[in-house]
Amino acid sequence: MAVNFPLITPGKLKPVPGITLGHAEAGIKKPDRKDLLVMKLAPTATVAGVFTTNRFCAAPVQLAKAHLDKAKTSGKPISALVVNTGNANAGTGEAGLANAQATCDALGKLLGVDASQILPFSTGVILEPLPVDKVIAGLPNAIAGLADNNWYSAAQAIMTTDTLPKAASRTVTISGKKVTLTGISKGAGMIRPNMATMLGFIACDAKVPQGLLEQMVKEAADASFNCITIDGDTSTNDSFMLIATGAGELEVVEHDSDEYQALTAAVIWLAQELAQLIVRDGEGATKFITLHIEQGRNDDECRKIAYAIGHSPLVKTAFFASDPNLGRILAAIGYAGVDDLDVSKIGLYLDDVWVAKHGGRHPDYQEADGQRVMKQSEITVKVTLGRGDASATVWTCDLSHDYVSINADYRS
Amino acid sequence: MAVNFPLITPGKLKPVPGITLGHAEAGIKKPDRKDLLVMKLAPTATVAGVFTTNRFCAAPVQLAKAHLDKAKTSGKPISALVVNTGNANAGTGEAGLANAQATCDALGKLLGVDASQILPFSTGVILEPLPVDKVIAGLPNAIAGLADNNWYSAAQAIMTTDTLPKAASRTVTISGKKVTLTGISKGAGMIRPNMATMLGFIACDAKVPQGLLEQMVKEAADASFNCITIDGDTSTNDSFMLIATGAGELEVVEHDSDEYQALTAAVIWLAQELAQLIVRDGEGATKFITLHIEQGRNDDECRKIAYAIGHSPLVKTAFFASDPNLGRILAAIGYAGVDDLDVSKIGLYLDDVWVAKHGGRHPDYQEADGQRVMKQSEITVKVTLGRGDASATVWTCDLSHDYVSINADYRS
Repeated sequence: MAVNFPLITPGKLKPVPGITLGHAEAGIKKPDRKDLLVMKLAPTATVAGVFTTNRFCAAPVQLAKAHLDKAKTSGKPISALVVNTGNANAGTGEAGLANAQATCDALGKLLGVDASQILPFSTGVILEPLPVDKVIAGLPNAIAGLADNNWYSAAQAIMTTDTLPKAASRTVTISGKKVTLTGISKGAGMIRPNMATMLGFIACDAKVPQGLLEQMVKEAADASFNCITIDGDTSTNDSFMLIATGAGELEVVEHDSDEYQALTAAVIWLAQELAQLIVRDGEGATKFITLHIEQGRNDDECRKIAYAIGHSPLVKTAFFASDPNLGRILAAIGYAGVDDLDVSKIGLYLDDVWVAKHGGRHPDYQEADGQRVMKQSEITVKVTLGRGDASATVWTCDLSHDYVSINADYRS
Repeated sequence: MAVNFPLITPGKLKPVPGITLGHAEAGIKKPDRKDLLVMKLAPTATVAGVFTTNRFCAAPVQLAKAHLDKAKTSGKPISALVVNTGNANAGTGEAGLANAQATCDALGKLLGVDASQILPFSTGVILEPLPVDKVIAGLPNAIAGLADNNWYSAAQAIMTTDTLPKAASRTVTISGKKVTLTGISKGAGMIRPNMATMLGFIACDAKVPQGLLEQMVKEAADASFNCITIDGDTSTNDSFMLIATGAGELEVVEHDSDEYQALTAAVIWLAQELAQLIVRDGEGATKFITLHIEQGRNDDECRKIAYAIGHSPLVKTAFFASDPNLGRILAAIGYAGVDDLDVSKIGLYLDDVWVAKHGGRHPDYQEADGQRVMKQSEITVKVTLGRGDASATVWTCDLSHDYVSINADYRS
């Protein structure tokens, strides 16, 4: 029951020169299900990422960070990424780290590279041992199928409670040179990324030096995956990786260049699309909500207010019910933690309907107008704070019976 | 479907000398429903309170604070409290303040006291105009029924989505003198009090000077209403009032006295009972959960972790499903915002079952043991942080289909 989810077909996803993808059915949690993905990179590729801030950072996340660091000094580039679904390998202590290492060892051996040239990722249930033998046994099949036109099945291979695979593709021309970008993401619950979403991967075929790519991935995460929330739960495994294969025509050489700006804009466009797909397929979602906070003193207070609204179970159930019980939005603004907020300056709009003015009900507001907007499947909530020029946007969804059902049944 | 809610009968609630209560059916939101309460105090009474920290603090809360301040300097004590349900008079701007003032004016006139000697309280829907004419028209009926044995109907008269009236009573002997304490509370959703619950009133017949009563009400709130959460939504109208009528035998004269300590302990006992009744009757609650965080560096970090667990929709739905998906608890601990938390020192217990040790699954943990505890209606989650002596306790409930139903239907 995803909300206005676009039709994504394999044919719409463009191969990115310099990266091939292959999957397997490794039986990690359930049989007959794509659950293992390998992405193999050209030796010219650079890779940068942002990761969860959860202190219970999963074993593969710890190892991926270490391997990215090592690649910067060893001269041996990242050669492949491996992703399993069905088990997060988080809250698994030393044994979990050993299992993530064993996965890298096995894949490195199969590809003829060092284990430190492999980045591991896992998603699924927390606190359960990773069935590492199944992962390792599945790797040869995944490698055997490596091809550049496998993005759609790659998106399928990283799904957990997702109802639909999430992927997007774009071609841009920068300084006369063609750049192809394709990405995939997954996540439907435990989504309130603090650095990135549950899992997101974007590859482009430009050549981008490591330092610039690291700046670019942070800018893109802040403008996309860091602007969504489904249930306020920051996962142990959030990772967003940006890959520049260097196999295409464009080379970005410095930060203050038109090329950097244009490529970053294209990456942000794709990252926002992938992030919004996650919200559209949010667990039990029936509404796609854009929260836009304006006239703040700084970005931080705007984001605080947006997240207070976006996390309020009362606001989210009102959206589910199409009930313009909009006082709940004011209450969330009031407890967002902006201590010196002057509520007499606050305005509230629901799409084009002016609901509250000077912190109280607008004299012309009619419940029928609020009701009309609340029935839509896409709604923009705008809050004006009347105290500055800063703003923030957060995308979220409603809280429905299906959210409870999905999460009450997740492991069964 | 409240969780192990005790049987409360009118006969169990002891009159407190110095306070009488009367209600009316004023038709504020619906007909034929107790929705207006007046509590009249002896001239010897002192009153102190704590209020919501929500910036959209409701009009009656603003006025109650101002009247409490005035009473301290005017020499005219608080004479009565008036509570309406069915409308919160919040997010109502200047008109809301005028309506709260009109309510105090009318009741002051009927009782022959100044309007500033009246404390007004409201609870119900936000952002809708208070039907003040109905409130005022109901006051004579409420006054006509004033009696000291009306605590049970008073508890009924302040209910909104509560399924059961909440009240408790206790008699203690302090320094050989008898003290009677009786209190009522209400609230079932929009409950994550930051100063106090939605509404809580406790009266005792001791004589307590204003300054000491103000300290006592803060201590009691911090140990009770400030330790519960249902949905993380801090209301616009939270108020907890402590009344010492001075009509009984005991007089408390200084802070460092056995009498102060003993009376405070009795007030805390009653406040905890009333706070826990709110959780037991939480919207859609099927489980009563005690979150106990130990070995923290300070209280604040223990409370942060307790609330992260208590607010996580994923944890709450797992409790609803009786599913020992306990990795979700680790994830919540990890994102609670304790930046230097060393997860390798963390332990997790579910009642008597040791689930996680050194941040990973305990080698002896069996899912069947976790399953057994999760099926209970009362569960204690204990987290040991291994970094100090501080601790915190928070009471909460699960997130069920009924929570969504209740809040999707609230105004209908």
